[in-house]
Amino acid sequence: MTRRIHVIGIGAGDPDYVTAQAVAALNDTDVFFAMDKGEAKDELVALRRLICERFITEPGYRFVEMPDPVRAKTGDYRQAVDDWHAARARLWAEAIESELPAGGVGAFLAWGDPSLYDSTLRILDRVAAHVDIDYDVIPGVTAVQALTARHRIPLNDVGEPVLITTGRRLREQGLTGTAVVMLDGDCAFMQTSAQTRIWWGAYLGTGDELLVSGTVGEVGERIVGLRAEARARHGWIMDTYLLRG
Amino acid sequence: MTRRIHVIGIGAGDPDYVTAQAVAALNDTDVFFAMDKGEAKDELVALRRLICERFITEPGYRFVEMPDPVRAKTGDYRQAVDDWHAARARLWAEAIESELPAGGVGAFLAWGDPSLYDSTLRILDRVAAHVDIDYDVIPGVTAVQALTARHRIPLNDVGEPVLITTGRRLREQGLTGTAVVMLDGDCAFMQTSAQTRIWWGAYLGTGDELLVSGTVGEVGERIVGLRAEARARHGWIMDTYLLRG
Repeated sequence: MTRRIHVIGIGAGDPDYVTAQAVAALNDTDVFFAMDKGEAKDELVALRRLICERFITEPGYRFVEMPDPVRAKTGDYRQAVDDWHAARARLWAEAIESELPAGGVGAFLAWGDPSLYDSTLRILDRVAAHVDIDYDVIPGVTAVQALTARHRIPLNDVGEPVLITTGRRLREQGLTGTAVVMLDGDCAFMQTSAQTRIWWGAYLGTGDELLVSGTVGEVGERIVGLRAEARARHGWIMDTYLLRG
Repeated sequence: MTRRIHVIGIGAGDPDYVTAQAVAALNDTDVFFAMDKGEAKDELVALRRLICERFITEPGYRFVEMPDPVRAKTGDYRQAVDDWHAARARLWAEAIESELPAGGVGAFLAWGDPSLYDSTLRILDRVAAHVDIDYDVIPGVTAVQALTARHRIPLNDVGEPVLITTGRRLREQGLTGTAVVMLDGDCAFMQTSAQTRIWWGAYLGTGDELLVSGTVGEVGERIVGLRAEARARHGWIMDTYLLRG
């Protein structure tokens, strides 16, 4: 019998970002699979469990933690990611086969939305080559929406496009118009012009939320300092920002 | 006393996309303000009322419909939008002053998320110049997330950017990498190469949902036909699509 898997977007930090559809999927789940990310992200693991505790009415579920293979930090980036996904897919297939009974329902929880800079769907696609699974995707509120909501700003200028990109790409390609930058560990915004407007947010939707806005010239250094300090204190940081050139 | 306004993202069609935060805001609201869009979008008005009926536990709220000023279809696009926002802001300010008691709580509901190709925040910013209001923004699941969830695909390629754009911009600028196209009444995807991959969706998350994927060469004409037929039948259409070049 086919095992069913929900890939559930649980929103960008605030448990109140969880949708009615996600609540139904959480309640439908027997086994939650999660990667063991080590102690640094204990707060994230706790937040995930809190979401389950708050929204699941009959707690017959359990968590299965899987070891996370190490990603090669040298060599070709795409090849390293590809190898890493293949290694994860093998571990996930084993875990699903051994921990989830045939006909059972498993789930993977994704921060924000499972489609945005998240590897769960790509890995499950590979898992499906090894194990008989059928999966569905529950969309969630991304950090992009959380950022604009907390700053109370539109994402796009009237009729204009918006680029969602990474710190690495911003450094390579520069800024044109509006861009939202994710996965930036190195404050790439500091390389844009001093007149660039920035709306920055970290730990969005949580009690530790940080919000700063202004021009890069005015607030850039302050963000760099706040970010380093918060990262040291928490042991991790999730942040994102919108730039308008 | 300041009037409070919630700008509530109610997700992209499926009432199950509504978040816990949106449910709290819906229940906090005395008066829902809405634009009268004419009969063509009666289904959308009904869906909005359905969301209120489903999630509001003590129905003491009421709806206030405001006339929607006509947007000039000729002349400069930005100027026309600007004039239209100014006209809306005047009508909204009047409606808020006359229909919402001082200290009361009003709300505007936005399909998807209030930040994405939606004018509510820009107009409220102008309203605030006339009336003493304080507003907050509740993020919601956008059509972009609904589209990728229903097609079960990642939005971005690994480490790559994604452009969110309009049909007009796609025609002007062509396609590079991955783009999500919104506000396209003229099937601009037909002008991309036949090898371009497309994931298209209309009435996402509703019982009338349409999903098609393939290359533009394989499925482009079919989407054009389906779209015209569905639009004629419903009197309106909301659709979006993802392209990978």
